[in-house]
Amino acid sequence: MMRTRPLKVALLGCGVVGSEVARIMTTHAADLAARIGAPVELAGVAVRRAGRPRPGVPEHLVTTDATELVKRGDIDVVVEVIGGIEPARGLILSAFEHGASVVSANKALLAQDGAALHAAAVGAGVDLYYEAAVAGAIPLIRPLRESLAGDKVNRVLGIVNGTTNFILDKMDSSGAGYSEALEEATALGYAEADPTADVEGFDAAAKAAILAGIAFHTRVTAAEVYREGITEVTAADIRSAKEMGCVVKLLAICERARDGRSVTARVHPAMIPLSHPLASVREAYNAVFVEAEAAGRLMFYGPGAGGSPTASAVLGDLVAVCRNKIAEATGPGESAYTELPARPMGDVVTRYHVSLDVADRAGVLAQVATVFAEHGVSIDTVRQQGRDGDASLVVVTHRATDAALSATVDKLRALDSVRDVASIMRVEGE
Amino acid sequence: MMRTRPLKVALLGCGVVGSEVARIMTTHAADLAARIGAPVELAGVAVRRAGRPRPGVPEHLVTTDATELVKRGDIDVVVEVIGGIEPARGLILSAFEHGASVVSANKALLAQDGAALHAAAVGAGVDLYYEAAVAGAIPLIRPLRESLAGDKVNRVLGIVNGTTNFILDKMDSSGAGYSEALEEATALGYAEADPTADVEGFDAAAKAAILAGIAFHTRVTAAEVYREGITEVTAADIRSAKEMGCVVKLLAICERARDGRSVTARVHPAMIPLSHPLASVREAYNAVFVEAEAAGRLMFYGPGAGGSPTASAVLGDLVAVCRNKIAEATGPGESAYTELPARPMGDVVTRYHVSLDVADRAGVLAQVATVFAEHGVSIDTVRQQGRDGDASLVVVTHRATDAALSATVDKLRALDSVRDVASIMRVEGE
Repeated sequence: MMRTRPLKVALLGCGVVGSEVARIMTTHAADLAARIGAPVELAGVAVRRAGRPRPGVPEHLVTTDATELVKRGDIDVVVEVIGGIEPARGLILSAFEHGASVVSANKALLAQDGAALHAAAVGAGVDLYYEAAVAGAIPLIRPLRESLAGDKVNRVLGIVNGTTNFILDKMDSSGAGYSEALEEATALGYAEADPTADVEGFDAAAKAAILAGIAFHTRVTAAEVYREGITEVTAADIRSAKEMGCVVKLLAICERARDGRSVTARVHPAMIPLSHPLASVREAYNAVFVEAEAAGRLMFYGPGAGGSPTASAVLGDLVAVCRNKIAEATGPGESAYTELPARPMGDVVTRYHVSLDVADRAGVLAQVATVFAEHGVSIDTVRQQGRDGDASLVVVTHRATDAALSATVDKLRALDSVRDVASIMRVEGE
Repeated sequence: MMRTRPLKVALLGCGVVGSEVARIMTTHAADLAARIGAPVELAGVAVRRAGRPRPGVPEHLVTTDATELVKRGDIDVVVEVIGGIEPARGLILSAFEHGASVVSANKALLAQDGAALHAAAVGAGVDLYYEAAVAGAIPLIRPLRESLAGDKVNRVLGIVNGTTNFILDKMDSSGAGYSEALEEATALGYAEADPTADVEGFDAAAKAAILAGIAFHTRVTAAEVYREGITEVTAADIRSAKEMGCVVKLLAICERARDGRSVTARVHPAMIPLSHPLASVREAYNAVFVEAEAAGRLMFYGPGAGGSPTASAVLGDLVAVCRNKIAEATGPGESAYTELPARPMGDVVTRYHVSLDVADRAGVLAQVATVFAEHGVSIDTVRQQGRDGDASLVVVTHRATDAALSATVDKLRALDSVRDVASIMRVEGE
C-alpha cells in the first residue's frame, strides 16, 4: 500500500551531519520509502555559502535562502541541522506555520526554547522530533518518552559529551594533564578549535536540560542546570580518583527529589567507582544510565556524536514524522504536566572528595574534622600524607547537601592551618 | 485537552507480570492519564483459577472466562501476559476482531506466528505491540523499529536470557559445574522448576527470531533459529575461556549476510573477550549490542526479566497504543518488505575453540593440523599439554563456515590419535 506522491523534505544545513543525511536519503531511498509507506524526496538544501562542492547533493536543490525554502508551501518535513539559536528558531517556527513537521538536532535551541517550540508545533498540528539532539545515535529521547511512558523515572546519569570524555579518558590512561589531553583531542578532531561549549559543560548542560524535562515530564532550561566544566581537573585529581578505585567523568545528572516535588539537573566532573558501568565508557563514546521505579537500571551506550551517528538519529525521526504525516496524526509531543520546579545546586545531596594542603602539625586533623562536623557533613574516610613540613589531607564525606559542603569549604579556607583547598570533587554512582 | 471517557483495558493473566501491571495502573493512574490524554480503566482481569487473593485487583473485575472478556465489545486494549501459544493466540485474534489493540509479552507466540498476528492487526486497523517480549524492560523493539528506521542494521548480538546468564556467571565466578550453578539459580528463583525453555535456549531463540525480523525488516521464525543450550558447558570450558582472556556467554546473534541477500539467527554458548562490553554483563542482566551502518555500535543494558521490569515495558506499550486509539491511528506495524530468507547454520562464519584429547606421540599435531587445512579451516593458535600418555590439544581457528568446521570435526573424530573431541565452542565479539 505505497502512496505514490512523495513527501518533500527541506534540509537546512549541509555540514557534517546534513551532507550525511542527504547521502543516506539518496542511497537508501528504497528502504526509506518502504519503511515510511511513501517515497521521500529531498526538495531543497539550504546552505550558508553557495558554490562549494557537495558530493551527492544535486546542484539545483541548493539555495542560500533558507527562509524562502521553508515558506515554499510544498514542504512536508524540515530537517534542521544548522545549530545555534538564530536563524534556526525563526526557520523552525516558519516551518510550523507552513504546515511542515520538523526534525532537529539542535540541543542549544531546545534547551532554551523547548516549551515555546513545542507549543508552536501543537498549535500547527505538526511534529517536532529531536532524537539527534542528545547523545547522537543513541536512542534516548524515544525510550524515555515512549518506552518508559508507563514508568516513573527517578534518575538519569550519563556521559553525554564525547569531547570531554575523550580528554578525561586520555588523562586517565596516560597521566597527561588537561592541556596536553585537550591538544591531542584537538589534533584528532575530537575537540573543536574553540572547545568552550564542550569543555565548560555548556553542551552537556543543554542535553541535561532536555533529558530532565522528558524524564520527569516537566520543563527544565539550560539556565537552570548547574554547570562545571573539566578545565580545572588536574592530573592529581585523576591520581586521587585512582587511589580510591575511581575514575573521573564529566557527568550529567538529573534527579527527582526524594519528596517528589522538585527536580535537579547538573553537569560536573565526578569520581565514579571503576565497578560502575559508566566507568568503562572510553574515548568519545557516550552512555546514559536511567533508573526507573519499575524498569530498574537501564543503560544506553553508543557513539554520541559524528556525522553518520547523528544522521542515523535524524533519519529515524524523519521516518517517524513522515509516517505521522501520512496517517494525518502527530506523535507524542511535549509532556510537561508535572510542572516540577528545578531546584538549585545547594539542595543536591551527594558525596565529596576534598583535597587539602595543610600544615603538618598536631591538632590540624582535629580542627578540620570539627569544621566538617559543625556543618553536619559526616566524614567517611581521611587520608593524610606528610610532605616537607606540609601535609596533604584527603577527606571523603558521606552524603551531604552541596550547600553544607560549600559552607564547610568556606570555613576550611579561613583556617590558618589550611594552606589551600586543592580540589573538591563529587563522588557519584554508588 | 483531556478526554474524559476512559479507555478500557482487559488484562489476560494475573501472575507475576499481570499483577504488577494492575498495581501500577492503579497507583499511577493520574500519571498514565496525563501521558495518554485520557484516563485508562482496568475493565476486567482474566485468570485461570478464581478465588485466589489478588491484592490490588478488585474482586468484581476478576473472571475465569477470558474469551467472554475479550468479546465484550467495550474493550479498547487487551494486555496479554498469559504466555504460550494457546489460548493466547485465539484470544489475541478475537481481540483484534472486536476492535481492540493488543499489548503482548508473548515471545513464543510472536516468534512462531508473528506474521499472521501482524496481518490480523492490520486487517482490523489496530495495534500489536510487544516490547516486553524481548529483554524485559530494556527498550529494544522500539529503538530497532523506530529510532533506527532510517539506518541499516547489520548485526544484533546479545544476552537475552537472564537465567542462563546467571548460571554461566556463577560458573565463571565460583568455578562451579553446570548442575551446581543451576541448583543455585533454582534456589534463588532465577530458574524455573522446569528450566528447559531457558537452559536449552528455546527462550533466547524466540527472542532472536523476533529481533532478526525487526532488525532486518524480514520474517524469521523460532524454527529457523539455530539453537544450542548451555547444558553441555563444562567447568573446563569456562577455564579454557579464562586462559584465552574470554568469558562464556549464551549469545543470540542475528546477522545480515555480507552479500545482503540473506540473514542468519542463532543462539549458542560462545567465548567473548573480556574487553567486550557484553563480557561484563553479570548475574541475570541482559544486554544487546546493535551494529548499524550509520549509527555504529549501540548497546542496550538492563534487567531482562522479572515482574516489575516486564510490567514497565507492557505499560510503555499500553500508553502508546492508547494514544494511537485516541488519535484513531496505528503505530508502525510489521515491516517485512525485504523478505530476506534465513540461511542455515552451515553458512555462518565465525571462529572456533576446539578442545581435543589426543595421544601424546610424535606426528599427532601434524595429523590434526592437516585435517583442519584439508577443510580450509585456518588455525590461529594451538596449545598442547601433555598428561599421562595422553595430551590435550586446544585449537583456536580463524574465521570459517560452520559447515567447514563440522566436517573438520567429523574427520578429527575418525582419527586414531584423537581420543575425544572434548568441546567445540564458537568465539565471538572480536
